[in-house]
Amino acid sequence: MIKIVLLGAGNVATHLYKGFKNASNIEVVQWYNRSKKAIEAYKNDVNITDNISDLVDADVYLIAVNDDAIEALTNSLPFEKRLVVHTSGSASLYDIDMKHYRGVFYPLQTFSKGVDLDFTTVPICIETLRKKDFKILEILGQSLGCTTYKVNPKQRPALHLAAVFVNNFTNQIYRIAHEITEKHGAEFDILKPLITETARKVQEVSPYMAQTGPAKRNDKKTIKRHLKLLDNPHQEDIYKLMTESIKKTHGR
Amino acid sequence: MIKIVLLGAGNVATHLYKGFKNASNIEVVQWYNRSKKAIEAYKNDVNITDNISDLVDADVYLIAVNDDAIEALTNSLPFEKRLVVHTSGSASLYDIDMKHYRGVFYPLQTFSKGVDLDFTTVPICIETLRKKDFKILEILGQSLGCTTYKVNPKQRPALHLAAVFVNNFTNQIYRIAHEITEKHGAEFDILKPLITETARKVQEVSPYMAQTGPAKRNDKKTIKRHLKLLDNPHQEDIYKLMTESIKKTHGR
Ligand SMILES: NC(=O)c1ccc[n+]([C@@H]2O[C@H](COP(=O)([O-])OP(=O)(O)OC[C@H]3O[C@@H](n4cnc5c(N)ncnc54)[C@H](OP(=O)(O)O)[C@@H]3O)[C@@H](O)[C@H]2O)c1
Ligand SMILES: NC(=O)c1ccc[n+]([C@@H]2O[C@H](COP(=O)([O-])OP(=O)(O)OC[C@H]3O[C@@H](n4cnc5c(N)ncnc54)[C@H](OP(=O)(O)O)[C@@H]3O)[C@@H](O)[C@H]2O)c1
Repeated sequence: MIKIVLLGAGNVATHLYKGFKNASNIEVVQWYNRSKKAIEAYKNDVNITDNISDLVDADVYLIAVNDDAIEALTNSLPFEKRLVVHTSGSASLYDIDMKHYRGVFYPLQTFSKGVDLDFTTVPICIETLRKKDFKILEILGQSLGCTTYKVNPKQRPALHLAAVFVNNFTNQIYRIAHEITEKHGAEFDILKPLITETARKVQEVSPYMAQTGPAKRNDKKTIKRHLKLLDNPHQEDIYKLMTESIKKTHGR
Repeated sequence: MIKIVLLGAGNVATHLYKGFKNASNIEVVQWYNRSKKAIEAYKNDVNITDNISDLVDADVYLIAVNDDAIEALTNSLPFEKRLVVHTSGSASLYDIDMKHYRGVFYPLQTFSKGVDLDFTTVPICIETLRKKDFKILEILGQSLGCTTYKVNPKQRPALHLAAVFVNNFTNQIYRIAHEITEKHGAEFDILKPLITETARKVQEVSPYMAQTGPAKRNDKKTIKRHLKLLDNPHQEDIYKLMTESIKKTHGR
């Protein structure tokens, strides 16, 4: 049985709490948040606290708070030489106060409190200084049903950056497509199967191989027609830059 | 039974041929291509020809050739007052010679000859001048198992443009993520569940509602760190423009 104290009560912490609850070899022995309100609803299920000096003994202190708060929070923990890990993709392992055994348990997925999550679709990127700590975090991830990956300090920030591209930037591309369809009285819904297929295709072939369309073909007539259709200069800039990018990649 | 003559033998025509073969109320009575080679393999299943003056009678002449070739090909057809439709998202209905009854049967999906296709994931955008032609094309689409949509000359080009965003531009975003992970020795595979989840999310909520991340939060520290990590000026431009775009959308 691995004993965990969970710190933070946002999107990630809340899903992790539920995930650990369902794992047979994990026990969340305590849940801390700076304000009790967010965890009040769980007080019959788990020992909750908003007092940092009340923290109990555990094998892992799992910190899912804002990136900027990691350093101060780990510094204020009233013990040392215990395994303290954060869940951030971009914060450094060294943001954790050096009095602890340090690690990162970064779930590379998008979490929203209100949206159900299937942990089998969550890759966990693990970084530790000590081998035995890696083993513990690996078991933690596997107990949730996740696939775990060992990453190093160079890889994790790159994965986080790449995640911003495939999640936030892709989503903004969807948003612009939504604006275009709305503007011309067409249904965004018609695009949904194509969105699904585009994401599905790169599960099997590389994005390089999957590319098609006017930019790859350098079909100047269509590109010109599209630019004429876009009367919003901002959308035009994105169209031009993405078209250039595709041409570059495919040697046009 | 609706009789079809199929013209063209590329990605779209080949999938349509297979789809119609499986539909009980559709008969492909002839398959034309300017070069016989591409359809030679089907000569025992269907009447094939490379001679435009050999075309037989049919209810629909379905033209799936390059956009630029539509006008000349429809002009050269040795008959008039029959239903002639193309499959392009961007060519005009008026690219079809006016001696015909004209229509568009635009499958808003990505087709590759070698990749299996499930027609239930293909929305068909239909444009016609006459109501009765719309009915015929609607049955055609439904017989394939597709969902059909009535569109007008303003909506279809907008849908095609939006499709370039969600398909080609999204795919290029994936490509850049691939470059970033490769450069830092990380596995692109780790991103695949996030790619899937990002596409899944907008099936249910709008892209506006689905957005998260440093740009939306205007998290300057993370943005700065990301820009430092990108040493390729082209990728930097895309990062900056997409970040600006998200900020704009979310009032930052
Ligand atoms: N959301 C995602 O999709 C996702 C994915 C992977 C990794 N992550 C990482 O997971 C961590 C948490 O993200 P999240 O989305 O769960 O955040 P969130 O929903 O915004 O929750 C933030 C939590 O941090 C607490 N907090 C904020 N400032 C604090 C401070 N100064 N001292 C102590 N606690 C503080 C908040 O407490 P209150 O309740 O009192 O405000 C809240 O419990 C971050 O490192 C993030 O980078 C997030
Ligand atoms: N691919 C897609 O994902 C997709 C999706 C929706 C709509 N569309 C539209 O469907 C149509 C066909 O696209 P596709 O991807 O199937 O194209 P494709 O694979 O490149 O095939 C083009 C076909 O057009 C023929 N062709 C080219 N120039 C011609 C000419 N001057 N005269 C007669 N035939 C000519 C070619 O004949 P040869 O075999 O002799 O070269 C070939 O059979 C286009 O209007 C396209 O916009 C495509």
